[in-house]
Amino acid sequence: MTKRIRLILLTAVLALYSYATAEDGYRLWLRYEPLEDAADYLRQIGDTEAGETNETSALAVEELKLGLDGLLGTSRSSKAPKILLGTPESNKAIAKLDLDLSDLGEEGFWVAAAGTKKKKQIVITANTDQGVLYGVFAFLRHLQTEQDLDGLNLKSTPRIEHRLLNHWDNLTRTVERTMAGASIFNWFDLPYYVEPYYHDYARACASIGINGTVLTNVNSNATILRPQYLEKVAALADTFRPYGIKVYLTARFSAPIEIGGLETADPLEPEVIKWWTDKINEIYEYVPDFGGFLVKANSEGQPGPQSYHRDHADGANLLARALAPHQGIVMWRAFVYEFETQEDRHKQAYTEFTGLDGKFEPNVLIQTKNGAIDFMPREPFHPLFGSTPETPLALELQIAQEYTGGDIHMVYLAPMWKEALSADTYVEGVGSTVAKVIDGSVYGHETSAIAGVANIGNARNWTGHPMAAANWYAFGRLAWDYDLSSEQIADEWTRMTFGNESSTVETIESMLLASYENMVSYSMPLGLHHIMYPGHHYGPGPWHDEGRPDWTSIYYHQANEDGIGFDRTETGSDALSQYAPEIIEQWGSPKTIPEKFLLWFHHVDWDFEMKSGNTLWQEICLTYQEGVDGVSEMIGQWESLEGRIDEQRYARVSALLHRQLQDAKFYKDACLAYFHTFAQRPYPEGVEAPEYDLEHYKSFELYHVPGDPGEQW
Amino acid sequence: MTKRIRLILLTAVLALYSYATAEDGYRLWLRYEPLEDAADYLRQIGDTEAGETNETSALAVEELKLGLDGLLGTSRSSKAPKILLGTPESNKAIAKLDLDLSDLGEEGFWVAAAGTKKKKQIVITANTDQGVLYGVFAFLRHLQTEQDLDGLNLKSTPRIEHRLLNHWDNLTRTVERTMAGASIFNWFDLPYYVEPYYHDYARACASIGINGTVLTNVNSNATILRPQYLEKVAALADTFRPYGIKVYLTARFSAPIEIGGLETADPLEPEVIKWWTDKINEIYEYVPDFGGFLVKANSEGQPGPQSYHRDHADGANLLARALAPHQGIVMWRAFVYEFETQEDRHKQAYTEFTGLDGKFEPNVLIQTKNGAIDFMPREPFHPLFGSTPETPLALELQIAQEYTGGDIHMVYLAPMWKEALSADTYVEGVGSTVAKVIDGSVYGHETSAIAGVANIGNARNWTGHPMAAANWYAFGRLAWDYDLSSEQIADEWTRMTFGNESSTVETIESMLLASYENMVSYSMPLGLHHIMYPGHHYGPGPWHDEGRPDWTSIYYHQANEDGIGFDRTETGSDALSQYAPEIIEQWGSPKTIPEKFLLWFHHVDWDFEMKSGNTLWQEICLTYQEGVDGVSEMIGQWESLEGRIDEQRYARVSALLHRQLQDAKFYKDACLAYFHTFAQRPYPEGVEAPEYDLEHYKSFELYHVPGDPGEQW
Repeated sequence: MTKRIRLILLTAVLALYSYATAEDGYRLWLRYEPLEDAADYLRQIGDTEAGETNETSALAVEELKLGLDGLLGTSRSSKAPKILLGTPESNKAIAKLDLDLSDLGEEGFWVAAAGTKKKKQIVITANTDQGVLYGVFAFLRHLQTEQDLDGLNLKSTPRIEHRLLNHWDNLTRTVERTMAGASIFNWFDLPYYVEPYYHDYARACASIGINGTVLTNVNSNATILRPQYLEKVAALADTFRPYGIKVYLTARFSAPIEIGGLETADPLEPEVIKWWTDKINEIYEYVPDFGGFLVKANSEGQPGPQSYHRDHADGANLLARALAPHQGIVMWRAFVYEFETQEDRHKQAYTEFTGLDGKFEPNVLIQTKNGAIDFMPREPFHPLFGSTPETPLALELQIAQEYTGGDIHMVYLAPMWKEALSADTYVEGVGSTVAKVIDGSVYGHETSAIAGVANIGNARNWTGHPMAAANWYAFGRLAWDYDLSSEQIADEWTRMTFGNESSTVETIESMLLASYENMVSYSMPLGLHHIMYPGHHYGPGPWHDEGRPDWTSIYYHQANEDGIGFDRTETGSDALSQYAPEIIEQWGSPKTIPEKFLLWFHHVDWDFEMKSGNTLWQEICLTYQEGVDGVSEMIGQWESLEGRIDEQRYARVSALLHRQLQDAKFYKDACLAYFHTFAQRPYPEGVEAPEYDLEHYKSFELYHVPGDPGEQW
Repeated sequence: MTKRIRLILLTAVLALYSYATAEDGYRLWLRYEPLEDAADYLRQIGDTEAGETNETSALAVEELKLGLDGLLGTSRSSKAPKILLGTPESNKAIAKLDLDLSDLGEEGFWVAAAGTKKKKQIVITANTDQGVLYGVFAFLRHLQTEQDLDGLNLKSTPRIEHRLLNHWDNLTRTVERTMAGASIFNWFDLPYYVEPYYHDYARACASIGINGTVLTNVNSNATILRPQYLEKVAALADTFRPYGIKVYLTARFSAPIEIGGLETADPLEPEVIKWWTDKINEIYEYVPDFGGFLVKANSEGQPGPQSYHRDHADGANLLARALAPHQGIVMWRAFVYEFETQEDRHKQAYTEFTGLDGKFEPNVLIQTKNGAIDFMPREPFHPLFGSTPETPLALELQIAQEYTGGDIHMVYLAPMWKEALSADTYVEGVGSTVAKVIDGSVYGHETSAIAGVANIGNARNWTGHPMAAANWYAFGRLAWDYDLSSEQIADEWTRMTFGNESSTVETIESMLLASYENMVSYSMPLGLHHIMYPGHHYGPGPWHDEGRPDWTSIYYHQANEDGIGFDRTETGSDALSQYAPEIIEQWGSPKTIPEKFLLWFHHVDWDFEMKSGNTLWQEICLTYQEGVDGVSEMIGQWESLEGRIDEQRYARVSALLHRQLQDAKFYKDACLAYFHTFAQRPYPEGVEAPEYDLEHYKSFELYHVPGDPGEQW
């Protein structure tokens, strides 16, 4: 029997086996599989007393039951310590404890061992039912990760107010930049039928503190604002509300024309103002707690106020004023750039929006990507952070792996986001981190928001790659508390998703934590950026030089016979000047800038001596090789898990890792073959020369790559 | 608590509940839930003895185990009668029985109680392992439907050779005319990862005898013929092969230009012939048992031989000759029509292909829809059937509910297909049914085929509407044996899908069997056809009169102040003349034609007296009303099942039925309001007048209807 046939039979047996098991990824990190160490918990966890319940607290009770039944079994003793669940208002037993919940705010929770030695209790409480629900998830996480109940004391309040997913989902059910099947939003069946999976989506989001979701693509479609669709939006809003999740929509700036029948969308025209005001009031009839709008305007072909010689503040304020009576917000994206100005793309958003600082209504946030280009594998922080003292900024991160390997490559993104969040902007001295700008503390902003472009589709396991769910999880955890470490989040997720067997946990965590740097290394190391294949963005394309210059690759790497890299210092585009003096000083010289950013800010000679003693050319080659070798290592680590985790996920991740290795090698070979034409220096020892000639890589094409907007409506 | 909140909580509880149960439709009719009456079977079914196994028989053994474990539990007695499974070659115990399997052919099976009184046995045997696999499914179906094992004797051989699904799936993973999510074919992950669900797809197909699948849309894409994709096709072919399922592809006629770099696709040009020959040989290197090509040419914009002034035979034969050495076939679609000829669309395919009869290579079949327009809710049989004595015809049916309510309306299509299959063409006297033309017996054709346009997507339950799975099932059963009745098939499917509780079964069967006629009645009764909304085809559009005439509605209903209907007799287009004399005689007069076809062939006065005594106008109104009332009845029947079937499916079908009623009423109101402008006669008693004026219906729009090819690549 050939290997292929054996593989097929194995997958067939898996298919049959998968009928009986449920490790198909659907349950995400909320599997609630029986714990090994249930006995110990069973002595300490008894019945739940919930007091009065409403929608949200009823869900909290249900979740707690689901979790405990799964983790500990259904035969729990009534003699074991009770769990008191609820707010002081809803649960008299909790009220009696007279706890100080003043620092919990609207969403914080407190989970603690309480009571007396004789009558032990566990208390899950908060000021609101929403907080109680969050507390239940925290408690269950504690058990899922097999932590001690002695001295149980989990108190937590989120640091950022609006913690949102952004779905780049189209109304045709295609999803931009995500490879996980169709959009989860089945618009045609709504509002008539609300599928059970919407609830599982909401549970997953609530379990990590996500409290808002933008349902539509930033490349927007005015049809979502029609009553026919507002009805559907309302059905989703009603479904998500008890979980504490508000819905938001993207507003197409030309909607007054497209669906309103007006001749103009000029934000200063009275009829346009009236149209938006009426429309927004209408939305609130359908969705009384509608969150607000996310807007991409005058960017990559999207309509906007500049089409009428107005500015972004004019556009944002129009919407903001109509939303304000309803407590709605506007997240106006800073992702604007065009080529006509001839200014370095890196500088444009800063120029645009610092110039408008102070002109925005209070309920406007400028939604800004973590870096100034576009979600590259590594980007230095966006200079806009901290540069708008009067205007709050929302941080936009990308969970979808548009530039980081689609649903094929295992890349844990928490380290990327930690790097972004803890970057010190120095705008108000040491410690003015991006996180502190975002949470409002640097400038005393009241409103705060963080958004993650979702990687979710209607695939059974939601995210395509089983490990990609870790990024959805990590986003939520960091949105709640940006001081959590990548390691802790990886540990939580791994235990919840794969169980607590220690060597399994160690191995998977080690892979997760190495995966990000591997990806940077085999794709765009040392500050290289935007050298991916055009259009579908999957795989390398450093030779791309056609069409709009700031959509080419050569614009960004500027490789020539002397060297490579983009001079963004004063001898170049001077994008560096948009940063604080401390940054300018440290990053201004190739010798002092962290090498991970070297080619982002400097055009550097091929022979430049790196800290390692290697030349730049050698370092580039070695780093690419390192990335590829890192994937090989991950494969070795994964193979050690055979027989120790379920066959279904073992096989899937295994297949994907092998593909990732193939891709990583292709990325390395293509880029080195290309850059070699400029560097014309030998490949250093330890680096495998490209397998084929450059033409082989240049002529390679992929077709119909999922998520490519060029193939979607 | 409002009704809405209660509904949401209920769905939330369902979501949690659905973690534990599996009535999400994924297992289709192969749920293998424990039988009530297991005890009786347990006495009669013991261990399985399979002899030697290979891929296919190993799957047969696995399926039998899966089925028996589920239906009867895992504690079966070794003392109960054994099941002998295999061919005489593979299983000595079966060889010893010296059975006469000569009439079973390559795919037939024989399942019977055998052995002696003392040593009872059950035998599942065939000439091939494929037949054995089919036998296992038949045996399990027997148990799933709680039939007696006394005198067990299931012997069956398929009557049609090629029994295919046609997936109108695009390489972008959109699916034309189906509303069940994305395409199940995850091309980007192939060939690296073959998901377990491909096996469950194959099992479902094999269980109903489907032995081939066309993977790509008839609105074709040449990219599937590139090596990069042939590799992916091979992975699917390898997966499906052990289940007896061959893969086929759609061939884009212009591929020599698009991917071959030639200047022409003229089928008589040597370089084009060479290109296709080489390409086909290449395909067989990847897929040694590749089934062949399905081709839509010179139809609705698809390229074809006529672009080079060649005919369909030229085009088909080019491919056929290259496929013949590999035993491949060509299914060349008869669905061709254009407006320039000014000939009734109904006549064109007949004219075209009867003229070419005798000119096709032996491995070409002309794939012909059941009727001469396009899968309308009811169509008289296509006059092409029986009119090509020298050329075999494949019957193309549509499982996808393009014109019959999408994945929203419950419409069981077996009665439609039975009507088509048992229609008597009279070409060789009485009994020359379409089925007998198709199976080759009328003209002694050796090759035969039947195809069903699939309704499958990556939705968890495969088909969107839970009841739509019954159509996939029914197609397979009829493809295997077209003499099975709609009732028997409905009974099988219902028992396998919902269990054997008799009143539940009765109720669901009754609904299924009424559903087709209801749909015809509330959409296009009495021979009305092609009056649906243009583009998305969901809902009514009898007023549509713009653009290409044979794509309007008025072309087909021709309503005016005198009457309505398309005169296809000798006083009109004379399409009727393409039928046999017996048909011409019976259908030639409005008085003798079955009323269900009246307006298909006759333009009839509004006051024409129907058999019922009503005028035509009254009958039209009453029939629409009947259809709407029929849906109300279905709702009443479904409500009686509350608490008797699982909550998940109960709720989903309930929501859909209410939407269906709303749609049915809208269809009726819109059509009657429109036709009333011509008839200008009172609505008869018993018919609710349209709720709104005509403008309301004409101005109603749906957006982004799933499956609309106008929104897909």
